[in-house]
Amino acid sequence: MAENKITAGLIGAGRIGKMHAENITAHIPDVFLKAVADPKLDESWAEKRGIPVRSLDMQVVLDDPEIEAVVIATPSTTHVALVCAAARAGKQIFCEKPIAFEPEAVNEAISAVESAGIRFQVGFNRRFDPDFATLKEAVAAGKIGTPHIIRITNRDPVRPDPAFLPDSGGLFMDFSIHDFDTLRFMSGDEVEEIYAAGTVLIDPEIERIGDIDTALITLKLTSGALCIIDNSRETNYGYDQQVEVFGSKGSISARNTTPTNTVLSTTDGVFTDRPYPSFIERYKAAFVAELRSFFTSVRDRTPTLVSGQDALAAVRIARAAQRSCEQNRPVRVVA
Amino acid sequence: MAENKITAGLIGAGRIGKMHAENITAHIPDVFLKAVADPKLDESWAEKRGIPVRSLDMQVVLDDPEIEAVVIATPSTTHVALVCAAARAGKQIFCEKPIAFEPEAVNEAISAVESAGIRFQVGFNRRFDPDFATLKEAVAAGKIGTPHIIRITNRDPVRPDPAFLPDSGGLFMDFSIHDFDTLRFMSGDEVEEIYAAGTVLIDPEIERIGDIDTALITLKLTSGALCIIDNSRETNYGYDQQVEVFGSKGSISARNTTPTNTVLSTTDGVFTDRPYPSFIERYKAAFVAELRSFFTSVRDRTPTLVSGQDALAAVRIARAAQRSCEQNRPVRVVA
Amino acid sequence: MAENKITAGLIGAGRIGKMHAENITAHIPDVFLKAVADPKLDESWAEKRGIPVRSLDMQVVLDDPEIEAVVIATPSTTHVALVCAAARAGKQIFCEKPIAFEPEAVNEAISAVESAGIRFQVGFNRRFDPDFATLKEAVAAGKIGTPHIIRITNRDPVRPDPAFLPDSGGLFMDFSIHDFDTLRFMSGDEVEEIYAAGTVLIDPEIERIGDIDTALITLKLTSGALCIIDNSRETNYGYDQQVEVFGSKGSISARNTTPTNTVLSTTDGVFTDRPYPSFIERYKAAFVAELRSFFTSVRDRTPTLVSGQDALAAVRIARAAQRSCEQNRPVRVVA
Amino acid sequence: MAENKITAGLIGAGRIGKMHAENITAHIPDVFLKAVADPKLDESWAEKRGIPVRSLDMQVVLDDPEIEAVVIATPSTTHVALVCAAARAGKQIFCEKPIAFEPEAVNEAISAVESAGIRFQVGFNRRFDPDFATLKEAVAAGKIGTPHIIRITNRDPVRPDPAFLPDSGGLFMDFSIHDFDTLRFMSGDEVEEIYAAGTVLIDPEIERIGDIDTALITLKLTSGALCIIDNSRETNYGYDQQVEVFGSKGSISARNTTPTNTVLSTTDGVFTDRPYPSFIERYKAAFVAELRSFFTSVRDRTPTLVSGQDALAAVRIARAAQRSCEQNRPVRVVA
Repeated sequence: MAENKITAGLIGAGRIGKMHAENITAHIPDVFLKAVADPKLDESWAEKRGIPVRSLDMQVVLDDPEIEAVVIATPSTTHVALVCAAARAGKQIFCEKPIAFEPEAVNEAISAVESAGIRFQVGFNRRFDPDFATLKEAVAAGKIGTPHIIRITNRDPVRPDPAFLPDSGGLFMDFSIHDFDTLRFMSGDEVEEIYAAGTVLIDPEIERIGDIDTALITLKLTSGALCIIDNSRETNYGYDQQVEVFGSKGSISARNTTPTNTVLSTTDGVFTDRPYPSFIERYKAAFVAELRSFFTSVRDRTPTLVSGQDALAAVRIARAAQRSCEQNRPVRVVA
Repeated sequence: MAENKITAGLIGAGRIGKMHAENITAHIPDVFLKAVADPKLDESWAEKRGIPVRSLDMQVVLDDPEIEAVVIATPSTTHVALVCAAARAGKQIFCEKPIAFEPEAVNEAISAVESAGIRFQVGFNRRFDPDFATLKEAVAAGKIGTPHIIRITNRDPVRPDPAFLPDSGGLFMDFSIHDFDTLRFMSGDEVEEIYAAGTVLIDPEIERIGDIDTALITLKLTSGALCIIDNSRETNYGYDQQVEVFGSKGSISARNTTPTNTVLSTTDGVFTDRPYPSFIERYKAAFVAELRSFFTSVRDRTPTLVSGQDALAAVRIARAAQRSCEQNRPVRVVA
Repeated sequence: MAENKITAGLIGAGRIGKMHAENITAHIPDVFLKAVADPKLDESWAEKRGIPVRSLDMQVVLDDPEIEAVVIATPSTTHVALVCAAARAGKQIFCEKPIAFEPEAVNEAISAVESAGIRFQVGFNRRFDPDFATLKEAVAAGKIGTPHIIRITNRDPVRPDPAFLPDSGGLFMDFSIHDFDTLRFMSGDEVEEIYAAGTVLIDPEIERIGDIDTALITLKLTSGALCIIDNSRETNYGYDQQVEVFGSKGSISARNTTPTNTVLSTTDGVFTDRPYPSFIERYKAAFVAELRSFFTSVRDRTPTLVSGQDALAAVRIARAAQRSCEQNRPVRVVA
Repeated sequence: MAENKITAGLIGAGRIGKMHAENITAHIPDVFLKAVADPKLDESWAEKRGIPVRSLDMQVVLDDPEIEAVVIATPSTTHVALVCAAARAGKQIFCEKPIAFEPEAVNEAISAVESAGIRFQVGFNRRFDPDFATLKEAVAAGKIGTPHIIRITNRDPVRPDPAFLPDSGGLFMDFSIHDFDTLRFMSGDEVEEIYAAGTVLIDPEIERIGDIDTALITLKLTSGALCIIDNSRETNYGYDQQVEVFGSKGSISARNTTPTNTVLSTTDGVFTDRPYPSFIERYKAAFVAELRSFFTSVRDRTPTLVSGQDALAAVRIARAAQRSCEQNRPVRVVA
């Protein structure tokens, strides 16, 4: 089988990059992860995973002619430049979200990718979650009729380190952006207008940085359907991920999934599992599936399931949300 | 025990009035329902319930010196005049919601009640639902810390007869008003600003009348907490009633209650009960409990648990919602 | 309505007798509870409920010509004599389970009842529970096909006071007897053979008395279906009441019902309600419904829904269980 | 990493053998599956999985000096001979359950394994299921106190092909044997006595073969705890796998797990997922985990987590169950 393997490289080996590398080596046997590059590379981690080429220099990955595909998991602010460079080097590209905070920059990446004629997939992993995909299929199959109301709950278990926030793009660009994509995925529809109410209720430090930690976002879709997203940076009880699509014939929901389906009953009460402690565990299957899907697209020369245009649409919604929140008024999303 | 019974009269014996009468006769043994008045009285229904005085004329109830307390369940547009007349007649008053569509009119009723020095309770029945009351207590006890996000789902099972709508006051005044009260009850907080997105997705006839059937309402509370209400006039799967209060320490939710807790598993799938088919069944315990509580206030000369000021606050929020929806902008709620 | 009321008397006003009296006065408005008799009568309790005739002497109730129906809730060992006396006095009879511990004694009661031509209902309240009744209907409607396996879990929340046990008839006669009736009710079938494994794991005092506190009972039905009952005298987490009927097309279960359907999620875990704390709360609706049904049978001269033969069948099964447990072998149930 | 890989061979490549092979190649990257042998080998399947050595002759695997460990997944009747041969060849051995139907034969395998000084693990996969393991840990940690009642439901989704049954060892040896091991695993206790009620309710063909398809098995443990297992060969609604351990402080249960945690609500009802369609999907994580654990034992020279003695204990219980069922009496399990 070895001769048929796709040879891949990883650019950026922080928390998410490491996770992608481990998913490839443990669960995607037809991909050979040859190289990893990160200016702060954890050398012993990489060695233990059996990645032969280990470098502090991204260029080493881009210059290696054996490497057919790259996974980009660097900080968001570096994505566009890396996508353009990788495209010029003829690599197939998987890139973490968001590509950029500005539509123009996303368009630059899209152009580079199109000129190079390579595959490009963006890391909206939730499309690959089995529960979310089941919802999408049920909605597409008409089981709940025409969508009327979509409800998305997305709440982090524990507030992020404030040190991470200044470069994050803010709550809407960094966190809600997943929900904007989920909404488009579930409905097959586009957002026309948005009203975002955001505030700081968890951590004054977040306010000092100019970000928010709690938000309610109302979206009006082209079809007339309404969507509500609620976001929080800290639940204390786990990673809260729920979606409902309610329509003319009924409703379908994805409730929180849990590590086990056990129940403990004692004098202290009846306990079930908390939701997963973080996105790593909650979306493990989705993270593996998105890479499998990407490498299948590479091998079979088929389109990827999350395109540059999907990245662009989500960024435009996030920017409109930001403007709406700042100006406290509904804002049109410009295509 | 008979000598201690409170003697009561019912004014308005449509669907809700009949329900109140049946709850009194079947479940509140220390109240004697002596009289019922309704211009379109269903005489045989009243006879079967053993109500001795049956009249088409409301005045008969108000003039009866034996009647200490009245339950008003007439159409909303008649409430103020009846509350004023009953107060003048010295009756203790339970009145269905909403008292009126205009704050001035509600104030008129409040003044009449205060002048007469009688008890006055408004029909926000959900405060008396065991599940909602459990939430309220848990929140008040600090179990979820400070509230950050309150989510309320309120959806009718089947669209109302359009003939009923022109006098209803519109979705916000007729239907969401329960949620406005629930929100105040759960949080112990007041609404400062509201943004309401409303539309017609279910029935074009509702649009013709100038009403809406689907809405998302964002509310900002004095504490800074955010609230989202989603409303629909038709689920097809039952009466959908859910509340969550999410706060600094965690979350508490009231999920839909169901007639039974049985599960059927066959080749066709795994089925559990649908939510109750209407508010009558869903809030049966709450409807009984609110009247019990009212009659206890009457007997013990204690304040009622839902005041005229509560009615006023809910009407003000409903009006702000209406204005927000019409003008598509956030609107301040004026106290 | 008063002139149509059935006049009733209560014999035995301990915990269960009081509950029946309160259910009648609060929830069955067309019955007038005129008298109560108990050698240890709690006079102030009876006065507060407005029961005019209060006596230490059972005969007072039996001798009152106005009293049409009696509810017998005395200790089990007195049931037969009281049923016979009440039947001779021409009273309609509702009697708590078990009628007696010996089939001959039950037959004596049945004969007395038949000679007198009066209605007789035995207190197998679970037949009137909404969840259990839903199961029964689903099974009878063929929704799960032919029953193959019936599973019943019946566990007390807290061990009984040992002082109560010597006259209880033992675990099978006092406690499992409900399950024997549930099984016959669910399946519409009869028990042919039984194997009971019983032991003492909770309280050595129970062993001293010669009783058991934990049991697994296997029953073979005429149809060939198998049934398993598990019993415990103490759960610590509430009154555990579950039934499943599994058949050729699928399965239907009644899970535990709970006071509310709320969920609390915090760092300590995800909590739902414990089951009800005792049979009083768990079967409240069933206790009211069984009496309503009894009084309806009395009024309409229709057969009661739980007959003397049902009592007899359950006692025969309980005795076979006792013998099986003592001899550690399967025992045939003799009709 | 390749130089550190354990080289393994598969003997028997039917449904379960193929599953093990696919789990190794897809999910256990530090094992190299070099060879597969099966008299009816599906050559193209093996080629596609990249297994270089493919043979109809088991001896080829045993004779290959590079192969350190073998996975035996042949029909049960061949297990002992193969275990002995593999042990003599010095291979580390994972063998599917049951090792044999006779304790003497199991002992023969154990002796061969001990003489050879190799690791030996039996395929009781459920010990490695995350939900079952969570129960075990909670019980071992004393969360439910001392076990009093253990309830196991094990039901196949669809009746097996009757052609498979004559060599299966019968329901107790082939199917309930998993439950016997689960029971020992959960309780850390041994079975002293067993009463098995078995019958044919699903398929007359199963009766013709002399087997049964429905059973209730009562087990008494050394500690005095009781256990009940219910088995069926056909649910129609999926693979039903539930365990409860009830004890002196409370209860812990593993409910059925499902492919997703989604809910669909329409006029047709409220639907959740059916249990998994077969053991392959239900215990996927467990099947991977048991092999991972085996290969870790091989690499680290640590004891395996399911020993030959565990296999022996389960076989003894299965035989006692068979005798109990045939003779319709409780039977002691002889150690």
